[in-house]
Amino acid sequence: MRTGDTVTLKDPPSVAQFAAVVGKKESEGPLSGSFDESHTDNTFGEKTWEKAESALQERAVQKLLEKASLSKQAVELIFAGDLENQTTASAYTQRSLDIPYVGLYGACSTMAESLAMAAAFVSTGLAKNAVALTSSHFCAAERQFRFPLEYGGKRTPTSQWTVTGAGACLLLPEGEGPYVKRFTVGRVADLGVSDLNNMGAAMAPAAAKTLAHFFEDTHTAPCDFDRIYTGDLGAVGTRCLRELMRQEYGLELQNHEDCGLLIFDRKTQNVQAGASGCGCGASVLCGHILPALKRGELKRALFIATGALMSPTTVQQGESIPCVAHLVELSHEK
Amino acid sequence: MRTGDTVTLKDPPSVAQFAAVVGKKESEGPLSGSFDESHTDNTFGEKTWEKAESALQERAVQKLLEKASLSKQAVELIFAGDLENQTTASAYTQRSLDIPYVGLYGACSTMAESLAMAAAFVSTGLAKNAVALTSSHFCAAERQFRFPLEYGGKRTPTSQWTVTGAGACLLLPEGEGPYVKRFTVGRVADLGVSDLNNMGAAMAPAAAKTLAHFFEDTHTAPCDFDRIYTGDLGAVGTRCLRELMRQEYGLELQNHEDCGLLIFDRKTQNVQAGASGCGCGASVLCGHILPALKRGELKRALFIATGALMSPTTVQQGESIPCVAHLVELSHEK
Repeated sequence: MRTGDTVTLKDPPSVAQFAAVVGKKESEGPLSGSFDESHTDNTFGEKTWEKAESALQERAVQKLLEKASLSKQAVELIFAGDLENQTTASAYTQRSLDIPYVGLYGACSTMAESLAMAAAFVSTGLAKNAVALTSSHFCAAERQFRFPLEYGGKRTPTSQWTVTGAGACLLLPEGEGPYVKRFTVGRVADLGVSDLNNMGAAMAPAAAKTLAHFFEDTHTAPCDFDRIYTGDLGAVGTRCLRELMRQEYGLELQNHEDCGLLIFDRKTQNVQAGASGCGCGASVLCGHILPALKRGELKRALFIATGALMSPTTVQQGESIPCVAHLVELSHEK
Repeated sequence: MRTGDTVTLKDPPSVAQFAAVVGKKESEGPLSGSFDESHTDNTFGEKTWEKAESALQERAVQKLLEKASLSKQAVELIFAGDLENQTTASAYTQRSLDIPYVGLYGACSTMAESLAMAAAFVSTGLAKNAVALTSSHFCAAERQFRFPLEYGGKRTPTSQWTVTGAGACLLLPEGEGPYVKRFTVGRVADLGVSDLNNMGAAMAPAAAKTLAHFFEDTHTAPCDFDRIYTGDLGAVGTRCLRELMRQEYGLELQNHEDCGLLIFDRKTQNVQAGASGCGCGASVLCGHILPALKRGELKRALFIATGALMSPTTVQQGESIPCVAHLVELSHEK
């Protein structure tokens, strides 16, 4: 059922399993111990950062299927995406998986996008199960979007540190939960930010827009949820979002947390404004948020992942950065 | 309902409207006169090729909504993608559309991918309507994947000419058709081709794999369809596909045509092995195939768009090219 931009799933599917795999820096942060696998070698034994990111995705899917006692042959559909040009981390991973594959591009919004698509297919019976998969890798992203690491460029205070991590969820029509109750597909927002090193400020208006649509569509308010998680706004974007929600929509986000501020310790880990990358929302969702929902520590939560949809080419051409935010409502109970 | 990799839609949605917008070379080819708009200026009045591609997408959506007498405010969902890094042609177009946006990346398979996703959402009632949108632009693609045009590189005989074109479809739950009856989401295939100038050979195995799955899942054979259209295999890929189908699966594709061989005249238009780009399948589908289905000249057709999922980076790293093909079954009657 659809109200405004929000789809309410008649038969909420279960996020039956989830797995998070991260790299070295992520495993040294505040969520250390939350992830299914933490690797100290960010090359994952590969010769290029791009291959390393595919290896990371493969590890996440393997771990997911292992936890779910499911063979890859039994998976009916996989929705996946990442930040690499032509989303090659996902495409190359598919070579070894051999699962019907829907490629997505939503930049850092991809974990919510893939989860919403997988939930839609499973809840309507178009697939008996589906996997949502998302990753990012610091080294692959840095050289693609900013500078090669060897250049040793100084990072600005508003910049965010791309997470080396992947998250994977298995959706089933039935199960113990947590459940995907609703989702809101975002509309693009662009308030004119053109600074590649200030993604948080660029993405905040997209998060605000989607949240406002969701609350209006569902007649809910922030206080109806135990926690509202954004994907990777970081310190600057978080301030912008709260301010926007207050000023534009008169809503106080008192129960808001940002995955980009949860995964690293900004005081000791030298990550400037926090974390980013689609692997940020993905690994925090699968390592921290979904487990809390499963245990019942959280009853109802919103996960809103935001994506900055520029390319280095468009930024070099002086364009501002269009952003999008997709929202998924997760619940302990069906 | 799902059998194998194929989804049969219980309530086949109607492709209620469709629009194709193309550039100069396309309007001089054999399908001249088939498109809703043909532009002689491939810059579309913009200063960069990337912006020109967004302008092309905007034209396609405007034309589509004009033909459907629908305002953009009434569109519930848009599935879109293109070939640019981070699919920026699609993302930047969304700034002026303000429609809930699901970004896809399937390279040249995107028209079938977006059509399948839109059909899935509309037929299950998750959206009252949805748009599928896909584009490519020769100049944006050449400099991104191969060489900047100014370099004046010699094209190899196996290379294909990226179409400057966009296609857009509007899906509604009811209508006069044509209808989307079934779709098959493809699995990635990679037989080891690593030549950026021979996409056809790289993509043919993916098309064969998806076709074979579809025929097996639905207990049909090529002769059950008036026509089987592939997206953009070109001359080399077409030969490979027919050979593969014959040798691997014992199937004769006697009623097969390739959009990459329909849109240009290889004898006079200097396009080497034919056309490619997601705009190829998109504009031929919306300008040529769907109109023939609507008029009843075709009763039943398959549209299989194939995508080569490499990036210039992965090719430079010596990787082969993973490919995917998505299939949509279209029918004159419900």
